[in-house]
Amino acid sequence: MSEIPNLQVIQEAHDRITPFIHRTPILTSQSINKLTGAEIYFKCENFQKVGAFKARGGLNAVLSLNKEDSIKGVATHSSGNHAQAIALAASMAEIPAYIVMPSNAPEVKKAAVKGYGAEITECEPTLKARETNVERIVSEKGSNMIHPYNDYRIVAGQATAAKELIEDVNLTLDSLLTPVGGGGLLSGSALSAHYLSPETRVIGTEPEGADDAYQSFKSGTLIPQLKPNTIADGLLTSLGELNFEIIKKHVDDILLANDEEIINAMRLIWERMKIIIEPSCAVPLAALMRSPDRFQGMKVGIILTGGNVDLAKLPFT
Amino acid sequence: MSEIPNLQVIQEAHDRITPFIHRTPILTSQSINKLTGAEIYFKCENFQKVGAFKARGGLNAVLSLNKEDSIKGVATHSSGNHAQAIALAASMAEIPAYIVMPSNAPEVKKAAVKGYGAEITECEPTLKARETNVERIVSEKGSNMIHPYNDYRIVAGQATAAKELIEDVNLTLDSLLTPVGGGGLLSGSALSAHYLSPETRVIGTEPEGADDAYQSFKSGTLIPQLKPNTIADGLLTSLGELNFEIIKKHVDDILLANDEEIINAMRLIWERMKIIIEPSCAVPLAALMRSPDRFQGMKVGIILTGGNVDLAKLPFT
Repeated sequence: MSEIPNLQVIQEAHDRITPFIHRTPILTSQSINKLTGAEIYFKCENFQKVGAFKARGGLNAVLSLNKEDSIKGVATHSSGNHAQAIALAASMAEIPAYIVMPSNAPEVKKAAVKGYGAEITECEPTLKARETNVERIVSEKGSNMIHPYNDYRIVAGQATAAKELIEDVNLTLDSLLTPVGGGGLLSGSALSAHYLSPETRVIGTEPEGADDAYQSFKSGTLIPQLKPNTIADGLLTSLGELNFEIIKKHVDDILLANDEEIINAMRLIWERMKIIIEPSCAVPLAALMRSPDRFQGMKVGIILTGGNVDLAKLPFT
Repeated sequence: MSEIPNLQVIQEAHDRITPFIHRTPILTSQSINKLTGAEIYFKCENFQKVGAFKARGGLNAVLSLNKEDSIKGVATHSSGNHAQAIALAASMAEIPAYIVMPSNAPEVKKAAVKGYGAEITECEPTLKARETNVERIVSEKGSNMIHPYNDYRIVAGQATAAKELIEDVNLTLDSLLTPVGGGGLLSGSALSAHYLSPETRVIGTEPEGADDAYQSFKSGTLIPQLKPNTIADGLLTSLGELNFEIIKKHVDDILLANDEEIINAMRLIWERMKIIIEPSCAVPLAALMRSPDRFQGMKVGIILTGGNVDLAKLPFT
């Protein structure tokens, strides 16, 4: 796929993956609405297969492969959720999966990837080490590289979460907030809103300790993430080129939150909503709570991206 | 109310509280079903107002008071969830609430009770200290004592959780499992099943470290809980007399689980279902997993009783 996904491509992706994913619920919390002054609709992708929205992109990419290509399997690098998504999709397609994971990825994610029968290669927690290892595997095995975000098949898959939110929420959202790491979810969400709910302003939210998307968006030039430092371990990666092009066109703004704000927002969702979300997932609420005036009285969609946390290493004290 | 609640009384309780409670969802988990060999329907009272089923009984009892009685307020003792339920109900009825809480009750529960505007009296964590303090308050203020479980208004209120589960599950449950502490939920669930789904066997589940209901059920004589020792802090109380009479008639069995099994089951629900439940709430799944053969291939309802945990004191390592 060499062009920005249009509505038909996103619809086809949705049809392709629907048999394998959950149409996740949208939850609301009176107490969080009261606290923020906004009317928030949480799309619960923490309840998705593999515990994260990444199942959508991974399934779309793997199930798009033709039979001849797919026989040599798929390869990727990921700190966790994309790894699980590709491992799940490959197990469903009954093809091999080779996953490069940084050594500091949460144990629970490594265990899940192994559980789907994928082969894990551990590497240093740098983008360079991850890419070098995947390239070696692809050249050795002839496997199909499935990039975690810089790939239109992934973008079209991730776009289906916002598509479902827009279809199911039964009102017009003023804003739609997602976290941004590599930009697969943000760019996909921006496309779905553009096609299906053009009045909705799409806003990316990012940790201060990994603010390459913010810097890139403000400067108009792609600036790589060199030394990320944040509790939001799903958002350490650099924004993808393909994603950045879509974000520049269709995203309204990028907002920041620091780790303390992220942990507070995470705690609020755990305590008030009784659901488990990972730190990356709390970034939109944290960013919203930093600028409460901006969202006062507004209908805001937030995609809760995943729920895979290491329960032995929680940030609550 | 001086007689065991009949179906009409339970229906009236349900009508009375419906405007103030959530009709909580029923969730299933493919991976937990696969692991246990049973087909489990979890009624998610962790998503209930105040984070626990106790909102049902508390609201029914408080909203049943006539105007003249209610003016002097309500009083009770509770380690947490019933306290919140009475505080919530009193705030809705705009009457004073006096709550005796043991000094070791979780901070998050004390904070929530204060948040509803109730007046807390802390006491030693023994049943005797709790009862003495409530009696003093009742005699000083003339308030209406609302016992956490040994009260038919409470039983009728708690019965509505099983009633909703039976109404919403759209199939006949082979078994219905609940935790048992004081017996309000178990006796209420047994009544709802008796009236609405008589084929369903109702089974109480209890921590080994607080097994007075088990001992009482097996011996046929009410045996008080003297030195409870379990992580399931909602189940430390002794079985009530009124509850025991109903349990003897309508409950099929009581099963046990130890704290290690309870923590494992709690972890399983957190990790696989991405929802937050408190330890007491994990006892039914823990007991089921101790006797997997007994539930093989069966349709089992489990009431997940609450989600109020102190996030700074989790049992996961």
